[in-house]
Amino acid sequence: MQLGLIGLGKMGGNMRDRMKAAGIDVIGYDTNPELSDVKDLKELVSKLEPPRNVWVMVPAGKVTQSVIDELGGLLDKGDLVIDGGNSKFTDDAKHEKELAEKGIEFADCGVSGGVWGKENGYALMAGGSNANIERLMPVFDALRPEGPRDESFCHAGDVGAGHYVKMVHNGIEYGMMQAYAEGYELLEAKEIVKDVPAAFKAWTRGTVVRSWLQELVAAALDKDPGLTQIEGFVNDSGEGRWTVQEAVEYGVPMPVISASLFQRFFSRQGTDSPAMKAVAAMRNEFGGHAVTKKGEKGVVTDH
Amino acid sequence: MQLGLIGLGKMGGNMRDRMKAAGIDVIGYDTNPELSDVKDLKELVSKLEPPRNVWVMVPAGKVTQSVIDELGGLLDKGDLVIDGGNSKFTDDAKHEKELAEKGIEFADCGVSGGVWGKENGYALMAGGSNANIERLMPVFDALRPEGPRDESFCHAGDVGAGHYVKMVHNGIEYGMMQAYAEGYELLEAKEIVKDVPAAFKAWTRGTVVRSWLQELVAAALDKDPGLTQIEGFVNDSGEGRWTVQEAVEYGVPMPVISASLFQRFFSRQGTDSPAMKAVAAMRNEFGGHAVTKKGEKGVVTDH
Amino acid sequence: MQLGLIGLGKMGGNMRDRMKAAGIDVIGYDTNPELSDVKDLKELVSKLEPPRNVWVMVPAGKVTQSVIDELGGLLDKGDLVIDGGNSKFTDDAKHEKELAEKGIEFADCGVSGGVWGKENGYALMAGGSNANIERLMPVFDALRPEGPRDESFCHAGDVGAGHYVKMVHNGIEYGMMQAYAEGYELLEAKEIVKDVPAAFKAWTRGTVVRSWLQELVAAALDKDPGLTQIEGFVNDSGEGRWTVQEAVEYGVPMPVISASLFQRFFSRQGTDSPAMKAVAAMRNEFGGHAVTKKGEKGVVTDH
Amino acid sequence: MQLGLIGLGKMGGNMRDRMKAAGIDVIGYDTNPELSDVKDLKELVSKLEPPRNVWVMVPAGKVTQSVIDELGGLLDKGDLVIDGGNSKFTDDAKHEKELAEKGIEFADCGVSGGVWGKENGYALMAGGSNANIERLMPVFDALRPEGPRDESFCHAGDVGAGHYVKMVHNGIEYGMMQAYAEGYELLEAKEIVKDVPAAFKAWTRGTVVRSWLQELVAAALDKDPGLTQIEGFVNDSGEGRWTVQEAVEYGVPMPVISASLFQRFFSRQGTDSPAMKAVAAMRNEFGGHAVTKKGEKGVVTDH
Repeated sequence: MQLGLIGLGKMGGNMRDRMKAAGIDVIGYDTNPELSDVKDLKELVSKLEPPRNVWVMVPAGKVTQSVIDELGGLLDKGDLVIDGGNSKFTDDAKHEKELAEKGIEFADCGVSGGVWGKENGYALMAGGSNANIERLMPVFDALRPEGPRDESFCHAGDVGAGHYVKMVHNGIEYGMMQAYAEGYELLEAKEIVKDVPAAFKAWTRGTVVRSWLQELVAAALDKDPGLTQIEGFVNDSGEGRWTVQEAVEYGVPMPVISASLFQRFFSRQGTDSPAMKAVAAMRNEFGGHAVTKKGEKGVVTDH
Repeated sequence: MQLGLIGLGKMGGNMRDRMKAAGIDVIGYDTNPELSDVKDLKELVSKLEPPRNVWVMVPAGKVTQSVIDELGGLLDKGDLVIDGGNSKFTDDAKHEKELAEKGIEFADCGVSGGVWGKENGYALMAGGSNANIERLMPVFDALRPEGPRDESFCHAGDVGAGHYVKMVHNGIEYGMMQAYAEGYELLEAKEIVKDVPAAFKAWTRGTVVRSWLQELVAAALDKDPGLTQIEGFVNDSGEGRWTVQEAVEYGVPMPVISASLFQRFFSRQGTDSPAMKAVAAMRNEFGGHAVTKKGEKGVVTDH
Repeated sequence: MQLGLIGLGKMGGNMRDRMKAAGIDVIGYDTNPELSDVKDLKELVSKLEPPRNVWVMVPAGKVTQSVIDELGGLLDKGDLVIDGGNSKFTDDAKHEKELAEKGIEFADCGVSGGVWGKENGYALMAGGSNANIERLMPVFDALRPEGPRDESFCHAGDVGAGHYVKMVHNGIEYGMMQAYAEGYELLEAKEIVKDVPAAFKAWTRGTVVRSWLQELVAAALDKDPGLTQIEGFVNDSGEGRWTVQEAVEYGVPMPVISASLFQRFFSRQGTDSPAMKAVAAMRNEFGGHAVTKKGEKGVVTDH
Repeated sequence: MQLGLIGLGKMGGNMRDRMKAAGIDVIGYDTNPELSDVKDLKELVSKLEPPRNVWVMVPAGKVTQSVIDELGGLLDKGDLVIDGGNSKFTDDAKHEKELAEKGIEFADCGVSGGVWGKENGYALMAGGSNANIERLMPVFDALRPEGPRDESFCHAGDVGAGHYVKMVHNGIEYGMMQAYAEGYELLEAKEIVKDVPAAFKAWTRGTVVRSWLQELVAAALDKDPGLTQIEGFVNDSGEGRWTVQEAVEYGVPMPVISASLFQRFFSRQGTDSPAMKAVAAMRNEFGGHAVTKKGEKGVVTDH
């Protein structure tokens, strides 16, 4: 199967490698000519056999919009664009409509996995018509981890549903991280508890709270007990904010995820809380998030 | 190694089986003569070679206190009692003092694993002196899951630290469950999302939110999409309350775990929220917690 | 001074009476001919001397938009429209722009006071240019309570700022109500406290928590100790939701106001909490909000 | 009426003045001889006609306990002690029991009013038997503000209920302050809002959020718009913590008051949030709370 892939950065580049290893014929484009297989989008399109499939993996917002705009002028009726970046779900409806005016199909996909994805595979949450999702299934199968398909891939619903599910995934992530962080801070405060890192590590097997995030806390504490090298300063990505705003819009009570978000806002106002250090450490462990080390102070950019 | 085990109920009985399978010479006592190896505590003590080790696995509070009292009159200097029940950590300090007056040693252990523990092993969080924890290590090794010791066992600190770490573990569990539940409710509310069970299942591999609890939600949704057979009614165990009260005592901000606890309180006042159904379903899945089915309405007892 | 007033319902009608009593020459229009002084907006405009001042006091959203649209076609350059309804601040910027294209001035005003305003006066939060606010000052002075102007009137900022300040006012109101409600529920739960209504009433003079809302709780408890005739079911108005969404947009931690909003969402899912009864009772007392009485169950519409 | 008054500090001294002005024959004792009417408690007791009434107004905890102990040895059967300090309600039950063994009566009273009380009067929340409260009514009437008795005095219930109601009063106060503070921070963040101090002041008459605390925010902003001279650092008193711990004990959902408490905890970890500055400013305004000014950093002691 042939696929055009636009955006060969940290995420897109790794995804290209994983797809190629699985036998997908990927033609990649990037603004960086050292990474790119073609000189521009026009050449990319010319190298793909119709009906074409093009995966967009560029920064959400303006960059994605300009790529969609340009593809709208280059692709033909029956071609299919899938946005795998971190776009807001509301952008998907807009892009679907804009491309549909030219007979071009559209689908969206939330991608989870970060720096670990190249080796372990990416979890995929897709939105779009049955036909379009079916059409891209070889690509999804190439990207996802080994194991049963439904444990790392879902067709969540209509266009936008993929990014929506990924957005909620991130909201849940905020709440889980804050829960571990609060537990961490209390354990650190209690005199009779002498070995907090050992406690977190001992939760790896057999407990109710075992999880990947728990393993990340344990790993961070193993390297730096007391988290003395980490600032209690945690940024937020748009997805947490959107999750809370959607909950408000739909009248869904969301005390925990909103509280997690607000603690991040609060951490930016200068606090140095142990819990926020733990959240920062978890983010550091799962990669892609710079941690503000002691002495520095800067804006942490989310991917 | 020889061990006296007091309490052969759902937890204690399974633990006996697992320890015996690992070669520990367990002599068990239970008030139910059909389960018990001996007719009373006196006979139990007489069958153990000094210095004796006695594991207490009975309901926290009055029952544990009366067993400690009786053991205080039966055991000899140098014997060791370990409380593996759900005692509050403040009880541990009291029991340690009471037994120390008679030269009897004391340790405590938080045990996680529920109905899954017999087969998979129990996670263990121990508190006490180095000598006492070392002395019981063959027992801990028999109970815990396979794999590196430090991934399911910790010596958390002084007497009380084992139960304290287990208490915080449960507090974290509340927060994680609520985070998933809030995400579930929002996904259910959103029109473009058509397959919420598939979304939860797709988070099993490769995502940041993968965890045992996430698998439990997925399993519950697989059986009953929409959770139509479950009341949004969730009880709380003492450990969640103690966690929040300790946080308040120590000046530790705990917005997420407290919010999770309060939503449980609130659910008892008659709500029928999707999120609380999801929490109830998770508890059902990990066992030991009766779920209030539609039409029933009753007090759910925590273990 | 002459003023056109559009919308003579519960709020607008009372405001007309208060303005007339203060000597403002009000010409009112309402779709209900029994209330209206003129047969349509065209006649209203014809009866006003240029430069005209027109106060719009109709439901936010579509109705306000259609009035603005129609006024845009009827008014002349230099005329001034002020929206005193419950419009979202984002509508103000739009209306300002639309009218500016025709040389018509625009201002906005949040109005607080409800059913008590006719007699006691309305608190006013205005947004717009200095010139426009100055121009309407006789109207503001007619509407506001006796006392120093700055204790019931502010020129909060640019167009939209009036509605914005009123929106935040409502968000704060949610938080205050929930604080009293939580205190109420705890007092009701405590055995040694025998007279909760007396406690709330005794806070009227000399305490830190004295307020109008506190007096309303006391009044409600005086009529119905135990709030036995009230359902714990509380709706929310758009303004609470907008407040939280704005906080999320601006990265402002808002744990208390968001928690208050979420408890209202939660109360709609079937709870019967004492705290939510107290919130419902307060809303009942300050008027304009139907309370769901025992046995009924319906949507409570906010003004 | 004759009254022994123990503790003539900031609160007790002002209360003595107010009671004397109302015709109560107060004999005061303080460890500071310059303030005291008698040289010790023995002399105090000797100067009072039996049956004696003694009001204790000393720091909660150890100091109150030692005064209760000493009075137990000096007073006679039928004498009455009332604790008007900031004791925890659990202490009241203990003190009642200890004195009852000697036939001495006991009552408790929460007192609100701070530095404003001498002139304006103190709000009083009393606990005890009907007979004892009736017996002290001339004292209560002397202390409370002018106006109907039930607007500043209540007999809340049994011994302990007075302090309990005062404790909940303080918890509600936390929630209210945080609500205003969150609103303040959002208004400060919004570009179109140009005059935040004017907004707060304009809420004084006719609004739903008008209150004494609102007037205090307005006064603080009048003096220091932007609150540039205040650190966002807010301590908590025991009463807020006890309120949340009681809520947890009784299964009462308390999301708002707990969130307010946690934000104070969080503020001590080094944040510099506008909302916390606003809370600090309110506390400063109502007196008795030192504010941490820029450049200082210290523990703020609650009264």
